Amino acid sequence: MNKYYNPPKSIWKELIKRPTIKISFINKTIDYIFNLVQKKGDDAIRLLTKEFDKIDLINNKVEESKIANAINYVDNELKNSINLAFDNIYKFHKSQLTKSCKIETSAGVVCWQEKRPIESVGFYIPGGSAPLFSTILMLAIPAMIAGCRKMILCTPPSSDGSANNIILYVAKLCNIKDIYLVGGAQAIAAMTFGTSSIPKVNKIFGPGNQYVTAAKIKSIQFNTAIDMPAGPSELLVLADQYANPSYIASDLLSQAEHGPDSQVIFVSLSKSLINDVEKCINDQIKNLDRIDFINNSISNSKLIFFDDETKAIDFINLYAPEHYIINVKNESFFIDNIVSAGSVFIGNYTPESAGDYASGTNHTLPTNGNAKQYSGVNLDSFQKTITFQKISKTGLLNISKTVETMAQAEGLKAHKNAVSIRVKDLKN
Amino acid sequence: MNKYYNPPKSIWKELIKRPTIKISFINKTIDYIFNLVQKKGDDAIRLLTKEFDKIDLINNKVEESKIANAINYVDNELKNSINLAFDNIYKFHKSQLTKSCKIETSAGVVCWQEKRPIESVGFYIPGGSAPLFSTILMLAIPAMIAGCRKMILCTPPSSDGSANNIILYVAKLCNIKDIYLVGGAQAIAAMTFGTSSIPKVNKIFGPGNQYVTAAKIKSIQFNTAIDMPAGPSELLVLADQYANPSYIASDLLSQAEHGPDSQVIFVSLSKSLINDVEKCINDQIKNLDRIDFINNSISNSKLIFFDDETKAIDFINLYAPEHYIINVKNESFFIDNIVSAGSVFIGNYTPESAGDYASGTNHTLPTNGNAKQYSGVNLDSFQKTITFQKISKTGLLNISKTVETMAQAEGLKAHKNAVSIRVKDLKN
Repeated sequence: MNKYYNPPKSIWKELIKRPTIKISFINKTIDYIFNLVQKKGDDAIRLLTKEFDKIDLINNKVEESKIANAINYVDNELKNSINLAFDNIYKFHKSQLTKSCKIETSAGVVCWQEKRPIESVGFYIPGGSAPLFSTILMLAIPAMIAGCRKMILCTPPSSDGSANNIILYVAKLCNIKDIYLVGGAQAIAAMTFGTSSIPKVNKIFGPGNQYVTAAKIKSIQFNTAIDMPAGPSELLVLADQYANPSYIASDLLSQAEHGPDSQVIFVSLSKSLINDVEKCINDQIKNLDRIDFINNSISNSKLIFFDDETKAIDFINLYAPEHYIINVKNESFFIDNIVSAGSVFIGNYTPESAGDYASGTNHTLPTNGNAKQYSGVNLDSFQKTITFQKISKTGLLNISKTVETMAQAEGLKAHKNAVSIRVKDLKN
Repeated sequence: MNKYYNPPKSIWKELIKRPTIKISFINKTIDYIFNLVQKKGDDAIRLLTKEFDKIDLINNKVEESKIANAINYVDNELKNSINLAFDNIYKFHKSQLTKSCKIETSAGVVCWQEKRPIESVGFYIPGGSAPLFSTILMLAIPAMIAGCRKMILCTPPSSDGSANNIILYVAKLCNIKDIYLVGGAQAIAAMTFGTSSIPKVNKIFGPGNQYVTAAKIKSIQFNTAIDMPAGPSELLVLADQYANPSYIASDLLSQAEHGPDSQVIFVSLSKSLINDVEKCINDQIKNLDRIDFINNSISNSKLIFFDDETKAIDFINLYAPEHYIINVKNESFFIDNIVSAGSVFIGNYTPESAGDYASGTNHTLPTNGNAKQYSGVNLDSFQKTITFQKISKTGLLNISKTVETMAQAEGLKAHKNAVSIRVKDLKN
């Protein structure tokens, strides 16, 4: 663990650095995969699945009966937990619905906004060591509330070509009918272009490795939107002498187990707390699994002491953490002044894992400093905002001179004429 | 003009096609420009400006005195018009402010969202035949309302290395202090990486040609967000026998003058109206400028008759127009059922040019079918949504079992432990 005491601003840029993600060197692979899928559709998908997942899948769509039967393989305690999580996620995202607000900007000029669902959305759920079924809840529930007509899900096949039953169960619970066993950049390419079996979607959501991220960015060139570029997960905990070091250690460790490149930062307003937390980490680590990931992340972690609250919040905003735990007495200062963060957890009894699963907030969040310019997934991610305007005769007369003068100054005579021709009638 | 009468669904895909934009073939140029700017900063900008804009600019930042003096070169009528437009755009975007809404998902589990400004934003204003100063209003006003701390503006230098005075005047009016004479992909690269003179920004906004669009998409790889991929402007007018053919013609022509690749589509619920509109177009065209653009766009335009309202709205949603004028008696049907459009103009007295300049709505809108998955620029484009949660002791006990069970099922023991360690204390 690397410790810093009142680090000067000159080294902050170094301190906030994430493990380098170089997308450029994999762009050639992505180009190859996109070209192949665009040209050969399902044949390309079969070829690439053979190459990358080492399995020859003739049909990658999961049969309806398999989805229906998955319920029998999920134990009741887990079902109950998923149900509670579902309810909380549903409630929180439902509360994000907004009403349209009409205003009259000039007399007779009425303008308003309305939100409409994105019609088709595709979710990518990575494979790997564990079935990340919770992400399905995070993506499908707001899509249901928004009213997206079509949801599809792509996830890599396991080595025997099967799908994970918990994933199938949660997908069915969320009304997802079309599930495809295809992973990596080829899944993103399939949802971008569409193949005979996999439909093209309007927007692609979900986490993934750097190949998936590079593929998502590439898909934008072909009229697909994406939730955000995803990177390794990260947590910044802020605490003072009133916080419980054991809780802080448990939060830092929960982040560290995600992967070897997970980012763990502890900002402390108390010098002695840094050593207490370090001790607790060393104690708790003994009872955990995924030890290689944890050791690697923890050895790269940074424990930083600031004796000044303003410096601390400035540093936190510069880092722009995906997850930000505030565990200090003067919490309102750190809530009010946070500008860039994905999701904020306040107090001793609000561990990040609560928000990862069941409190109701979304866990698909901007990483790698992207919290400076991206929101986490929320209801708006599944909607477009459309503006409307209706102008009365009086309204048009009130703004006609303005439009004519500005159009003229921009050299757009036909723009001017569209107003003049109407005004001429109105003045007669 | 191409006319279609009740075209069968089988050819709709052909009818909605935009002029092909191929980004892939220019990606090599974009890679070259990005590499150069990343490595050589201001030297690269000078080199590229020499190459593309045929001018050797040693200092591309517009001097403060020039910005301050610009006011003397703008005539009063235009100033008054810009003021009215400013007020209306301000009012409409201010009305988009939302309140945070706290909810308790489970007892003791309180979750909410808050919006915070994106700290630094960069605007790209294209050069060319006319100074598109209105776009500055559309980007800077919502940025001011959102509270963005830093706004910068890039625009290509004119052939004598000067900046347009109306652009400088409007920029000053909108509180933009940093203006750089740099155009094309090199401007986007500069705002992505930052150079000694031009700062890196968090999000890049504004229209541009296909090089600018490809550069904006590329910038996402380097932790920059963009408003949307932009393409040639487009308008779809829907009308029935109660509409005024002369007004429709003027709207179609106002769109056609943007460029040779502008898209103009007229969907008519009346057969005879198609011929009336065609006649009005031929009459009005005689008095317009930019005739080459107009002739080219109009010759590619499509006039489509549908005898069925449902087919008409299905077609419109498939096309997903940037601008959508509704000029029919049964307007509510076509308002309620629009799913994909950028901005909607309703009635005989609501020409598109009103929204382009002065009604208050934003004119930076999704083109090329992107209205299916993107919103036009609005207040939210300049903010991030951050989620917050605070859980009480009771709250944690209420969801602890759920979090523990789900974390266990995903194989994330440290996630489970962060809850268990707290619950153990609470139960003692």
